[in-house]
Amino acid sequence: MTRADDTPDKASAAPLHMIDIIRKKRDGGALSEREIRFVANGAASGSIPLEQLAAWLMAAWIKGLSLDETRALTLAMRDSGEKFSPVRLGKTAVDKHSSGGVGDKTSFLVAPLAAACGVAVPMISGRALGHTGGTLDKLESIPGYRTALSLDEFESVLKQCGASIVSQTPALVPADRILYALRDRTGTVENPSLICASILSKKLAAGLDALVLDVKTGSGAFLRDVRQAEFLAALMVATAEMAGTRTVALLTDMGQPLGRAAGNWIELVESIELLRGKQPAEGPESNFDLRELSLILAGWMIHLGGKADTPESGYERAEAALMDGSALRIFFEMVEAQGGDVSVFHDAEKFHKPGVTEVVTAWESGFIAEMDTTALGWAVQRLGAGREKAGEPVDPHAGILFHARRGAQVKRGEPLATLYATSAAQLAEPREILCQAITLSKDPPHAVVPLVSRIFTRDSAEKYLQNAVR
Amino acid sequence: MTRADDTPDKASAAPLHMIDIIRKKRDGGALSEREIRFVANGAASGSIPLEQLAAWLMAAWIKGLSLDETRALTLAMRDSGEKFSPVRLGKTAVDKHSSGGVGDKTSFLVAPLAAACGVAVPMISGRALGHTGGTLDKLESIPGYRTALSLDEFESVLKQCGASIVSQTPALVPADRILYALRDRTGTVENPSLICASILSKKLAAGLDALVLDVKTGSGAFLRDVRQAEFLAALMVATAEMAGTRTVALLTDMGQPLGRAAGNWIELVESIELLRGKQPAEGPESNFDLRELSLILAGWMIHLGGKADTPESGYERAEAALMDGSALRIFFEMVEAQGGDVSVFHDAEKFHKPGVTEVVTAWESGFIAEMDTTALGWAVQRLGAGREKAGEPVDPHAGILFHARRGAQVKRGEPLATLYATSAAQLAEPREILCQAITLSKDPPHAVVPLVSRIFTRDSAEKYLQNAVR
Repeated sequence: MTRADDTPDKASAAPLHMIDIIRKKRDGGALSEREIRFVANGAASGSIPLEQLAAWLMAAWIKGLSLDETRALTLAMRDSGEKFSPVRLGKTAVDKHSSGGVGDKTSFLVAPLAAACGVAVPMISGRALGHTGGTLDKLESIPGYRTALSLDEFESVLKQCGASIVSQTPALVPADRILYALRDRTGTVENPSLICASILSKKLAAGLDALVLDVKTGSGAFLRDVRQAEFLAALMVATAEMAGTRTVALLTDMGQPLGRAAGNWIELVESIELLRGKQPAEGPESNFDLRELSLILAGWMIHLGGKADTPESGYERAEAALMDGSALRIFFEMVEAQGGDVSVFHDAEKFHKPGVTEVVTAWESGFIAEMDTTALGWAVQRLGAGREKAGEPVDPHAGILFHARRGAQVKRGEPLATLYATSAAQLAEPREILCQAITLSKDPPHAVVPLVSRIFTRDSAEKYLQNAVR
Repeated sequence: MTRADDTPDKASAAPLHMIDIIRKKRDGGALSEREIRFVANGAASGSIPLEQLAAWLMAAWIKGLSLDETRALTLAMRDSGEKFSPVRLGKTAVDKHSSGGVGDKTSFLVAPLAAACGVAVPMISGRALGHTGGTLDKLESIPGYRTALSLDEFESVLKQCGASIVSQTPALVPADRILYALRDRTGTVENPSLICASILSKKLAAGLDALVLDVKTGSGAFLRDVRQAEFLAALMVATAEMAGTRTVALLTDMGQPLGRAAGNWIELVESIELLRGKQPAEGPESNFDLRELSLILAGWMIHLGGKADTPESGYERAEAALMDGSALRIFFEMVEAQGGDVSVFHDAEKFHKPGVTEVVTAWESGFIAEMDTTALGWAVQRLGAGREKAGEPVDPHAGILFHARRGAQVKRGEPLATLYATSAAQLAEPREILCQAITLSKDPPHAVVPLVSRIFTRDSAEKYLQNAVR
């Protein structure tokens, strides 16, 4: 059998062969920057066949990539296609990235909040997949809103509004498009280095000066194990900082949906209410967490973007922009600049036209002790708001509105949630999942879960990684 | 991201998904027979895409397959296509398989020897690849010889002659055709379980009653580490026995080419000389090893096929069939039955028409202490006798004839080997490789390497595997 090792004359400057790189990683070797760049460029150009990339991904998944290899892969993927340069915006470019969740609509708040405080927010977002929602799907529930802008149009919206939320262009980070889809099919998704390279390559290709990472923990998080989430957060901070982008990561609670609404249009409605300066709802359906997390994230963006000395003063600036309506104005300007019809927000309730509506009530009296948020995300998906496979359409009006949240006391027969679906046939399974996912208990939950449990800056991330045993 | 684990309602009788099987093996889990059969059938039918098979192969390579998993994969691959049934032959069906080497031409001897002693030898062989030669390429140097027979033609030749050497039909073990080619591209070749399943699935699909395995060790072996070779040998014996085929494995020396000739036509010539009852050459170019190993292997085939009480008496019967010309008659009958022109053997030297010939002489006086037989195999390949990639043509007349073998004493200027190539331009690199591969020493080599170093029967194989730490 032909083995490159067996052939004579293998000089060090010789051309690279994918088979050698696969075998090296399979045997636990450390790949050079040149070898990793060969993989990323071969993925982007299609010169390396999918089966070889798949074998390499599995070897990397099992044997792991070092910090150096992770950085090299991130940069090679960033460089695999065209890039966006925010230099001509004349502002510091800052973005936020969340690792996904249920009801996570902070992007609609932090983008205009940070823009209102003087930084540019060039935000390249994703779509719903599995139990997690997608920022682009939510925005597309606004009639006319275009997410697929060219980089020139992106720049033009950013110049005009200070913020723009768009989809990835085909030419941006092509290596990630290939590898991301391949990882999904080959069981090589949940690896910190591969996740880090996938997320950061796209963020770094947008030319960011600073980046705030929101890494979820708890029952709705992609990485439910808190140590895995911490490791990923620290790895991303260290990698992005090595690439020259000031970065911070917050570990935040996804032990229940964020805010009251989970779906598409209903999440925008909830966001706009807060941007209008309305105080968060009180009582069992309070969405204080959504407002608070958005202000904390925006505060860090404003601070890292040089517009506030501390994240706390950034928070205060963001809150001022929320209360004086300047962030709302920026959001509407952005929607209009991207072709969206803002008039739908005049009477947002009226625009909401779900096919069917059903209220689920408490089956006994008690406290909401736990919410299996991943299961709730699947319920939202199966109501029609999300998708199981890439490319499937979504229903903008489907989703769940929660009337009682974790820790709330409810009486038997009181409403827990309202389900919105395209058709009545779609209600049964989500209703069943919802009832299974919510645990009612006689006693109030004893532990209070902090909204932000840990923050990694460059120094603390590097220290964490030095001590981490993977 | 969509994960099957996250979805509710996963019953045990649910349909299988390749992504789950990949993840299970990736995490070191043990796959069920049903899961392994799903993989083999999906490979054969094309319903599992190559990238998923590649990821699974890498996970299996790194995490390993248990004895049960190896057996399940072997049987599932065996069952992935049509099979040959030797029942209508009315004889015990026995085959020999060698793990490949340089100058290994025992098939041309053992097939007619065993057939002459009353067993049927349905032999499905392979082609040259890399540094190893291929039985089919050698046979095809006989004008007219057809290796691609249908199973009906195969049966007809076997009924007439008792032996037939053919190529794998496209419908036989399709799972292996897919996986074998994929392993070559994805760095997942050298794994004992995958090698075992690949070899045995094809042998078991031929419906064998018994099988003799010749596992090479030494500088020309595919597995140079003797413990790896032992493990593979024991694994194959245990797996084939579990599948109901009486099996024995011999670890044999490939520390020098087997016999004097390495190429295509010249290997047939050497074989026919021995089948004609000619005593092996004497002195430095003795090919006693080829005759001896062929008789030992044939002796085991005859014994396992029930035509001799012991392998030793099988050896004696084989030697008698060699000396009385009955094996030679069977070989010629087989060649004619498969369309070959036996007249070329009347004056075999005259039929040999290499493009160019060059004699390489000893550059100093001394003993041949070592031969890097893998390198010698590459020299043979680069003379034109072999191929680097599947599908390339071979030159039937190219090759090397060795005039001095390991341990021989040579004087400076005496011939070491004759090179045959298609054109003069092809001589330089093989000559250089040959001179690098042969170590001349002042002292005779002190260690005598046994031709057969170890034999595994069912009992000793199972004992070995129980003690083996992989």
